[in-house]
Amino acid sequence: MNQNTSTTVDLETIKTIVTTLDLIPLIEEGFAAYSNGQSVVPPVGELQLDKGEVHIKYGFIESQQFYVIKIASGFYGNTELGLSSSGGCILVFSQETGQLVNVLLDGGHLTDTRTAVAGAIVAKHLAPKKVNRIGIVGTGIQALMQLNHLRNVVDCSDVLVWGRSPKSVQEFLARVQTTEIAQEPGLQICCADSIKTLQRQCNLIVTTTPSCEPLLAVEHLQPGTHITAVGSDMPEKQELESQILAQADIVVADSIEQCKTRGEIAHAMQDGEFDNGDVIELGDIIAGKKQGRTSDQQITVADLTGVAVQDIQIATAVANSVAKSRTKAKPLKRNRE
Amino acid sequence: MNQNTSTTVDLETIKTIVTTLDLIPLIEEGFAAYSNGQSVVPPVGELQLDKGEVHIKYGFIESQQFYVIKIASGFYGNTELGLSSSGGCILVFSQETGQLVNVLLDGGHLTDTRTAVAGAIVAKHLAPKKVNRIGIVGTGIQALMQLNHLRNVVDCSDVLVWGRSPKSVQEFLARVQTTEIAQEPGLQICCADSIKTLQRQCNLIVTTTPSCEPLLAVEHLQPGTHITAVGSDMPEKQELESQILAQADIVVADSIEQCKTRGEIAHAMQDGEFDNGDVIELGDIIAGKKQGRTSDQQITVADLTGVAVQDIQIATAVANSVAKSRTKAKPLKRNRE
Repeated sequence: MNQNTSTTVDLETIKTIVTTLDLIPLIEEGFAAYSNGQSVVPPVGELQLDKGEVHIKYGFIESQQFYVIKIASGFYGNTELGLSSSGGCILVFSQETGQLVNVLLDGGHLTDTRTAVAGAIVAKHLAPKKVNRIGIVGTGIQALMQLNHLRNVVDCSDVLVWGRSPKSVQEFLARVQTTEIAQEPGLQICCADSIKTLQRQCNLIVTTTPSCEPLLAVEHLQPGTHITAVGSDMPEKQELESQILAQADIVVADSIEQCKTRGEIAHAMQDGEFDNGDVIELGDIIAGKKQGRTSDQQITVADLTGVAVQDIQIATAVANSVAKSRTKAKPLKRNRE
Repeated sequence: MNQNTSTTVDLETIKTIVTTLDLIPLIEEGFAAYSNGQSVVPPVGELQLDKGEVHIKYGFIESQQFYVIKIASGFYGNTELGLSSSGGCILVFSQETGQLVNVLLDGGHLTDTRTAVAGAIVAKHLAPKKVNRIGIVGTGIQALMQLNHLRNVVDCSDVLVWGRSPKSVQEFLARVQTTEIAQEPGLQICCADSIKTLQRQCNLIVTTTPSCEPLLAVEHLQPGTHITAVGSDMPEKQELESQILAQADIVVADSIEQCKTRGEIAHAMQDGEFDNGDVIELGDIIAGKKQGRTSDQQITVADLTGVAVQDIQIATAVANSVAKSRTKAKPLKRNRE
């Protein structure tokens, strides 16, 4: 007895679907449900292997149709093999019957996307009214995607990029030219000669590196700056000096619970620079329960460690889109048993 | 950049492959590696939904090729919808690159199989030399599969079955007649008029129910009996009166760590009837590090809560078999991206 019918969706199809989705309100709804206690998101499962690390994020939002399990991996030696360092897939199941509905073979694309969208959401709620210059720290796929999604919420075409390897910065600048970002009229994207310059000139900074050493220094911190820290998703990673959080007027976490053990907030707490009680959860700002930035002089920091509600929302949207295209009798790969 | 190529394997193919595998040594090897500290098996992830429950078991054995993530669900209202109550799938990934290798759409079949094989392994090491009568408690798929796999290790054709619903027992007896079990010469399989009768007449008993009330009573416990408790995989489930564990000469767990929080051992500990320090781990018996049964008068109990090494071993064997059939150029469903 097994009438399970699931659809496997390949990366190309997923990429096409994603371009049709209005992701900011979708992911905002997820964060709001999370902060409002309407989601069930157990602690992240982790595997540490010799060659890489694996995260399992899973959960559901009450009253929705699906529960979602995401496997995301980082195998940093893969680039030498000509493979992507990030991998994984997302499984979508029915909350009603437990049946597998979709295997989304996104190879990390949905994670990259929902992470970049969270960066845009944070900028929407916390960036100063006038962004003079955007600072991107890091040169990987997430740096590129953050920049891309920021364009939806920030009116600024002046970008500085800094990376730990000058060669990678040059490659990043070349890669930007191959994307739609380069089509933006008036876009100026330059290499910063130092992280100090970037901190001094940019009032919206996004850090996207897997650094285990702080990169942004408190001594270069300018009033009115917003910083979104995206890179630190594991306990040992850190991009901001702990004192930056101590100096900030507002510190926001995607998940207060999760930020106790990983990310910038966890480090600042361990260093005794910061009290977790001062953290505001992103979903509460989105829902209007807590205030975000109230003046252009405030320093704000958002620590994004990634929450399963983001995966739930983006995977649900893709699954709904797949179901719609099926009812239109558009053939998709199916696995019947 | 994404050269990921994964093969999705449907239930029919999986069932065919499983019949070709020599499962007892495979799963024994998994238990031995687990008890020897050669595996990484994080705590089980869980989701409780309105209509069902989901377990995520995952991990890897060092020096092997794959890591494995299993999703297994129980949605007990599904039978009314004509769907299987157990569902899920197993994902097989490369330890080298993190790439997804196989999506095994087993719908719970590999879990059912590896659980039944564990029952056979336990019987191999703990059942009395002469099994007079096999007692099966429960009437579901696991009852059937335990009986089926016991035939590989126990020389006894006399079986008593007891279930909480007489109707289900009759359906079970009818179902047995449709399986290869019924082909066994001399097989006698009867319905027990009570659990007491079953306990009095059978010296190898397997309990397979999701009961939350103890079914087997200490007052009917006979010397020389071995009991394998398979049903209790969640903290609230219990099939054996706690005093049975107190009276047993040997209590074996598949995972001592896991049995602290779920299964019969956890209940007996909570009831103050039993000290976890007395438990022997199955893998240590298999590896010859600890002794199993040493006399036909001993009472032995094994508590099987299910460990990811079982899933790792069976999924790895299926994946290897799929890879072999691919090199033989036998076409299988593939998803390329």
